[in-house]
Amino acid sequence: MELKLYLEEKKRIVEDFLAEYFKKGIRPDVLGDAMKYSVFAGGKRLRPVLCIAAYEACGGNGQDILPQAGALELIHTYSLIHDDLPAMDDDDLRRGKPTNHKVYGEAVAILAGDGLLTEAFRMFSSSSRISATALLAGIRELSAAAGLYGMVAGQAMDIISEGKVPQIDTLEFIHRNKTAALIRASLMIGGILTETDERTLQALKHYGEGIGLAFQVVDDILDVTGTTEELGKTKGADDSRGKMTYPALYGIERSRVIAADLITTALDAIQPMGEEKAFRLKEIANYLTRRTN
Amino acid sequence: MELKLYLEEKKRIVEDFLAEYFKKGIRPDVLGDAMKYSVFAGGKRLRPVLCIAAYEACGGNGQDILPQAGALELIHTYSLIHDDLPAMDDDDLRRGKPTNHKVYGEAVAILAGDGLLTEAFRMFSSSSRISATALLAGIRELSAAAGLYGMVAGQAMDIISEGKVPQIDTLEFIHRNKTAALIRASLMIGGILTETDERTLQALKHYGEGIGLAFQVVDDILDVTGTTEELGKTKGADDSRGKMTYPALYGIERSRVIAADLITTALDAIQPMGEEKAFRLKEIANYLTRRTN
Repeated sequence: MELKLYLEEKKRIVEDFLAEYFKKGIRPDVLGDAMKYSVFAGGKRLRPVLCIAAYEACGGNGQDILPQAGALELIHTYSLIHDDLPAMDDDDLRRGKPTNHKVYGEAVAILAGDGLLTEAFRMFSSSSRISATALLAGIRELSAAAGLYGMVAGQAMDIISEGKVPQIDTLEFIHRNKTAALIRASLMIGGILTETDERTLQALKHYGEGIGLAFQVVDDILDVTGTTEELGKTKGADDSRGKMTYPALYGIERSRVIAADLITTALDAIQPMGEEKAFRLKEIANYLTRRTN
Repeated sequence: MELKLYLEEKKRIVEDFLAEYFKKGIRPDVLGDAMKYSVFAGGKRLRPVLCIAAYEACGGNGQDILPQAGALELIHTYSLIHDDLPAMDDDDLRRGKPTNHKVYGEAVAILAGDGLLTEAFRMFSSSSRISATALLAGIRELSAAAGLYGMVAGQAMDIISEGKVPQIDTLEFIHRNKTAALIRASLMIGGILTETDERTLQALKHYGEGIGLAFQVVDDILDVTGTTEELGKTKGADDSRGKMTYPALYGIERSRVIAADLITTALDAIQPMGEEKAFRLKEIANYLTRRTN
């Protein structure tokens, strides 16, 4: 199967699962509406797709881990809602639509985020197809990468560094934690849920770290070179907020080289998995550097 | 052991565990500081103590479940931080000290809450003394009670009902979900972690539901009859925000009767557990109706 079709197919099974999951009523209605507004606002479903790709690279069938893959998307969605809040990045536009708090107000947006984060752990832990030991190991990985050893720490550093003189180590901390950690965890969780060996887990970890960081460097570049229409969010927002970014520190050309080098490192990391297991992950790595939004 | 000593002893082992846990460095510093500010702002540690009491009623030793009991306190703490935010209840005072966002600003307060919620699941899932199956069942209970089938749903209903004409079913929904659900879960998790029988779990569930709701009714009463100094939070805040409360709907005297009836129901629920198992839980139920803050 061609990569494009593969990605579309995996995205579709994740979205079908989420659509079915959110058919249940949520009280009060406005809370459910706000959660669904952001979950179904589009997006690449990158983290679930990566989780499924890693799970399948380790010999599993993606259909077996839809609750775990879906949970990654709920956590990603919650992080976007909270990041966009007036007290944080104060964004009006996300994926070409008004941000959650613009539609539902700040209080409901905060609670929709809290609800998605909490429900992610419920979704993740509800599965009859995966062993309790593997699910628990996955929850440990997920909660580290989404929290103090990843996303929350990265976002906190991002917020407190706004307008400061860019520093390489601060910038790396932000990007590794805010973006790369959950992408890395998505891949590792795919491996963990198949109960694969430690060597493969380490390969997935380094691959995830590489493509995760590359993904954010490309994101920084697109914020400068893309259009608001292409991006679905306000172009140049990083610069106008005084955000630390790769282009701000290294310029566009050097940032492109850094992204390419990270992808090479990621590809090297999964070399030991063998061509048959690794080929889809290799295709995905190359695809991510070519993306425009 | 006298109840007062029992509660103090359990509170102390929970606080010692949390103090040790948070010795590790958290980056950025301000995120760790904000989290610790609220975790160590005092409080009764009611939810962890109830969890331990239920675990011990079912034959376990509380020392074995400190990460799970501690996780309940992290979730309770996160909920207070987010509830106090300007977009929510806009409170300046909590446990006699300035609220988190008053000290650290809104952005860091939101992230401190997100960090505590996420870390709670990491803390809960990290244990060598409890089986993976029991931990997973505990996580399902916790994520339901803290999220869409409890606290988040209750807080959302609370926020959207402010200033509206009080309705019995809305008020019950708020209190059952916002407060009683996590208290009920604390007790059930104590039972779940000992892998006790379904009948005992149901007893703990109904007991928890009863004392949880009674606890909130008493809280509503104290908001009217207590002083700001006694409460550690602004007296009369519910009324001035047009919150739906039991005193607003039923008056003080009738609310006291409702609380007493709920405690009776709770006591009846654990009767089948037998005197030896149930006696501490009975003492706690009676104690909760007598509290002044």
